[in-house]
Amino acid sequence: MSSGFRSVLIIGPGLIGGSFALALRAAGLADSIHAADSDARNLAAAVKLGIVDSCVTLESARTADLVVVAVPVGAVETVLSSVAPFLGERTVVTDVGSSKSDVVVQARRALGEAFERFVPGHPISGSDASGAGAASGSLFRGKKVVLTPVEKTVAWAVDRVASAWRACGAEVELLAPEEHDRILAVVSHLPHVIAYALVERVGMDSAPQLLLEHSAGAFRDVTRIAASSPELWRDVCLSNGKALMAEIEQFQGILSRISGYIERRDGAQIEKLFADARRLKERFGNRGAKGFRDNESS
Amino acid sequence: MSSGFRSVLIIGPGLIGGSFALALRAAGLADSIHAADSDARNLAAAVKLGIVDSCVTLESARTADLVVVAVPVGAVETVLSSVAPFLGERTVVTDVGSSKSDVVVQARRALGEAFERFVPGHPISGSDASGAGAASGSLFRGKKVVLTPVEKTVAWAVDRVASAWRACGAEVELLAPEEHDRILAVVSHLPHVIAYALVERVGMDSAPQLLLEHSAGAFRDVTRIAASSPELWRDVCLSNGKALMAEIEQFQGILSRISGYIERRDGAQIEKLFADARRLKERFGNRGAKGFRDNESS
Repeated sequence: MSSGFRSVLIIGPGLIGGSFALALRAAGLADSIHAADSDARNLAAAVKLGIVDSCVTLESARTADLVVVAVPVGAVETVLSSVAPFLGERTVVTDVGSSKSDVVVQARRALGEAFERFVPGHPISGSDASGAGAASGSLFRGKKVVLTPVEKTVAWAVDRVASAWRACGAEVELLAPEEHDRILAVVSHLPHVIAYALVERVGMDSAPQLLLEHSAGAFRDVTRIAASSPELWRDVCLSNGKALMAEIEQFQGILSRISGYIERRDGAQIEKLFADARRLKERFGNRGAKGFRDNESS
Repeated sequence: MSSGFRSVLIIGPGLIGGSFALALRAAGLADSIHAADSDARNLAAAVKLGIVDSCVTLESARTADLVVVAVPVGAVETVLSSVAPFLGERTVVTDVGSSKSDVVVQARRALGEAFERFVPGHPISGSDASGAGAASGSLFRGKKVVLTPVEKTVAWAVDRVASAWRACGAEVELLAPEEHDRILAVVSHLPHVIAYALVERVGMDSAPQLLLEHSAGAFRDVTRIAASSPELWRDVCLSNGKALMAEIEQFQGILSRISGYIERRDGAQIEKLFADARRLKERFGNRGAKGFRDNESS
């Protein structure tokens, strides 16, 4: 088990952290896996479900050779600052947050010397479900995991984290943090804002129930991810705020364009935009469907 | 078979028209079902698949006691004008369009005396698939069908159409055309515009493939209905333009509000909006899931 870990500490054994624990164990990559969590109930569930061997305090980072921070991105700096004093000289630290530039800034501030062994990561798979109870050892199979090391990050740390993800069945890719954030703003963060905003539109109505009684598959699918964790997505919005605000504005511009076509009764332009979209959708129809789970997200 | 029809003419035996034909036949409600279509290939498919007994010209409306207009809403007036001279004095005419006020205006212009026997209808179920090949006799089972008769519409015609839909397993509801259009603008027409617009955002990018390679379930689901028929949805946009433009503007306002929260880093407001949306989504989680089909739409 040369590329394996003696002891892994998962901070936040929820959907992603718990799934990573299960996948690492299934791959025979960890002798022992422990967890810490500010949410005592989730922590107890993770132990009870056999996802981790025991619940521990952050001090246990002393004996860990891999520390996985799987908390909402708004809490990463606090968690890293708390764990920093206990990190060994060869301990690798990684995270799973949906935004990366901001996480790198947080980690740089929090970790000091250990920052060179911090490997920013983002598994592109998830669910509108959350918590240890939703964890699955096969969540990352066939999925993409983006790692965004920076200049200071040491190569051997990146290699260890990359190997661990590959052993979990994921396809590892390296990107610059800013490139990751720009891409994810379009294909994940904006769609989540859209879904929440569309449900908000219904909630603002004088008769939300009447509206929902007349909704069918279209509304259900566009808003599926509005069932996602509000805390987690609040943090993503703030953490990738600049890129996301730019995307919201651009999206509003496209909506204005369509509204203008409608106002001018320009059926040809409407049809062209819709047909181009359908063509693109069909061309990449299988994208995102790989390893399909009913309530998959991200 | 007192409430049945001797001869039904389906104009446009596509997904909806073809499914209605299959369901009517399965319910034993039609002695014979014929079809007309400007799309010769779809017409041939409908006959070959046994969805209808034969393909005919619009003149065959002479012998029909039910005429079902199942064409994109932009073509309703042309079709009704063409068929009007052949309608018998007891022939009932209905449609299946996604917008109703505009269809009523078109029908009033096109049908003359026969307008009193025109029953505007909208089955709230569909699919991003289209054409006779996608038709299914169970498409309407457990689904809502809205009928929007106006003052001039005779009650016995409404009853006959309502009975037919009920025999197909649908739940029939009466609404004013304007009320229907306001509701559907929110829960169906706006979601379609949003889906197409989000794919358009990707298409406008300098690297659409890179974006799509990093997309997962969230993007896939929000944009599923961007695979819907461009012609059909162009017509819906134009036909329900006023209500839809108002909805687009209101939706842009909600996006601006969220963007403002992000800019002011007001995490509490973001979380509140997301949490309220999740609560509403969960409360009505089963709505639209009734009779779930993987690619259901509307």
